[in-house]
Amino acid sequence: MNLDDPTAQIGEWLRNEGPDSDIVLSSRVRLARNLEDYQFPSRISEEDRKEAVTYITEALSSSSIKPPLEYYSLNQMSETDREMLVERHLTSKEHSEASGERGVAVSEDESVAVMVNEEDHLRIQVFRSAFRLEEAWSAVNELDDVIGSQVNYAFSPEFGYLSACPTNVGTGLRASVMLHMPALAMSRQVDSFFRSVNRINLAVRGLYGEGTEALGNLFQVSNQVSLGKSEEEIIENLASAIPQIVHYERQAREHLIDQSCEQVEDRVWRAFGMLKTARTISSNETLELLSHVRLGINVGLIDTVDIQTVNQLFVLTLPAHLQKIRGESLGPRERDIARADFIRRVLGEP
Amino acid sequence: MNLDDPTAQIGEWLRNEGPDSDIVLSSRVRLARNLEDYQFPSRISEEDRKEAVTYITEALSSSSIKPPLEYYSLNQMSETDREMLVERHLTSKEHSEASGERGVAVSEDESVAVMVNEEDHLRIQVFRSAFRLEEAWSAVNELDDVIGSQVNYAFSPEFGYLSACPTNVGTGLRASVMLHMPALAMSRQVDSFFRSVNRINLAVRGLYGEGTEALGNLFQVSNQVSLGKSEEEIIENLASAIPQIVHYERQAREHLIDQSCEQVEDRVWRAFGMLKTARTISSNETLELLSHVRLGINVGLIDTVDIQTVNQLFVLTLPAHLQKIRGESLGPRERDIARADFIRRVLGEP
Repeated sequence: MNLDDPTAQIGEWLRNEGPDSDIVLSSRVRLARNLEDYQFPSRISEEDRKEAVTYITEALSSSSIKPPLEYYSLNQMSETDREMLVERHLTSKEHSEASGERGVAVSEDESVAVMVNEEDHLRIQVFRSAFRLEEAWSAVNELDDVIGSQVNYAFSPEFGYLSACPTNVGTGLRASVMLHMPALAMSRQVDSFFRSVNRINLAVRGLYGEGTEALGNLFQVSNQVSLGKSEEEIIENLASAIPQIVHYERQAREHLIDQSCEQVEDRVWRAFGMLKTARTISSNETLELLSHVRLGINVGLIDTVDIQTVNQLFVLTLPAHLQKIRGESLGPRERDIARADFIRRVLGEP
Repeated sequence: MNLDDPTAQIGEWLRNEGPDSDIVLSSRVRLARNLEDYQFPSRISEEDRKEAVTYITEALSSSSIKPPLEYYSLNQMSETDREMLVERHLTSKEHSEASGERGVAVSEDESVAVMVNEEDHLRIQVFRSAFRLEEAWSAVNELDDVIGSQVNYAFSPEFGYLSACPTNVGTGLRASVMLHMPALAMSRQVDSFFRSVNRINLAVRGLYGEGTEALGNLFQVSNQVSLGKSEEEIIENLASAIPQIVHYERQAREHLIDQSCEQVEDRVWRAFGMLKTARTISSNETLELLSHVRLGINVGLIDTVDIQTVNQLFVLTLPAHLQKIRGESLGPRERDIARADFIRRVLGEP
């Protein structure tokens, strides 16, 4: 990761490589782990909190950790840099905005990010582009074993891994996939989609987690339960639902193109036209238009820009990224202008 | 005029040549004239109506008429062709939709159009692009003299030229200018503009006359009174108001660019982007977007398309023109698609 030039590299979750990448942007598995000898981060003293960080970062810098991780101390970073990590999905908003000694250890390719002193002492996350949940699981499982051989995890034979919030006790596992469902949104079936996903004990969230809207028609689907099932069962439960959801969106796309081809084409092309010409544009509108363009590429309407570029724009046009790219702090109005400029530049428009 | 290929030639009123053409699209003067020996068209017998047409068209084909006119018999034309003449401003909607022997004599460059058996036996119209009202007046005045030397006009020493509707008695003169006022519309000053124009006894109408909206931010301003003043006074009264109106719009443009430059730029460029990418577009939206693009060219933002092209698109994208261009009758949905295709083609987009 290059904090000074966020355009230098595309994050793992945006690479668009792997199965069903037209609909599944990325797969993520994270494990919540705590240290046996320290209190949970919400109750810990500042002295112990620092000690815990030293203890963990030493373990994370061990040569047995693959891929190697670089530790970023959030309490020593600017607000914009911290926000940028949130926008890149490497850390959480809560973690970024908290206080005290804390950080995140990230691999060069951004496929691994370990949050330190978030709600739990460790939140080990592994990302894979597209629908590669099992791969993400086996990678995080291996990493967990290596980290667990370096530090003492708080573990109860009865409950499993202990965690600050009861919903994470047990396996401490949350698996999620990020889905792009524009046809579903266009055909106004989002509510019925939410209901059917909830019925099989999965949760749906927006692009930036709980309580965020499904901006850009991006939805995160994840397991709700962490206790009472094995890790493999949780992964399998989520993984088995995804092909149905993918099928649902594919059908919605076909139906849309069958029933209102010119409306879809029109929406896709106008979105592309507006991104190429706007002189001021909000972040939300950008996500919405990028979503249409992404659909347009996937259904074969647009071939002058690739999905990776669109995926990357989803993140690079967010406020913190934009300010890093411009190298200055910008108010909302200036950001909207800078965003429009940046998009035109990326799309090769004058 | 080429009825089979309406793209072959741009009408006089769209040529964009002359003073203040950034705001004044065109100037028009028309004279209402009736024949002494025939009843008004609303009361005439069908036999006399035909005889009147023969009498008038013979006079109009005289070699002394300059420029030479070609007569189009509306009662022998298809509905689409008649609508096309309305869209080109050569005849009125009422004349097009009426029944019985009637027509319009048009010069090759469409600078002259004489309606025959509209509300009056003759409505002699002369058009000039831009703000050239005096020129239009002297041309129509000359033409009126020539026609008047060929036919017997109904004239009363007391009232002047007699006409079917009392508002036209006297001089029978209506002078009007077509104005493009996008900045006025953007700054929501249309109502106050209407009030101030009415206060000086001028009427404001939309693009297609009485009761039509100001589509594309195009407004026709004309005299309301035809009796009790000389022709020169009427022309002078209107002509003297136009520089103020032009100044008003220019100020509004400057103010807009001063106060909300990026919003104006954004609107202009997005409009251009949408015209270049839309796959289906209504006639009203087209006029609205063309209006923004026309403003964009005039304030120096856009230089990859010229005003003449935009002016021409105002007319060529209307329903009848579009159907003539496609060579087939189209329903509203098909027209919207054909319109988007045609605009992209004209703007050189794939």
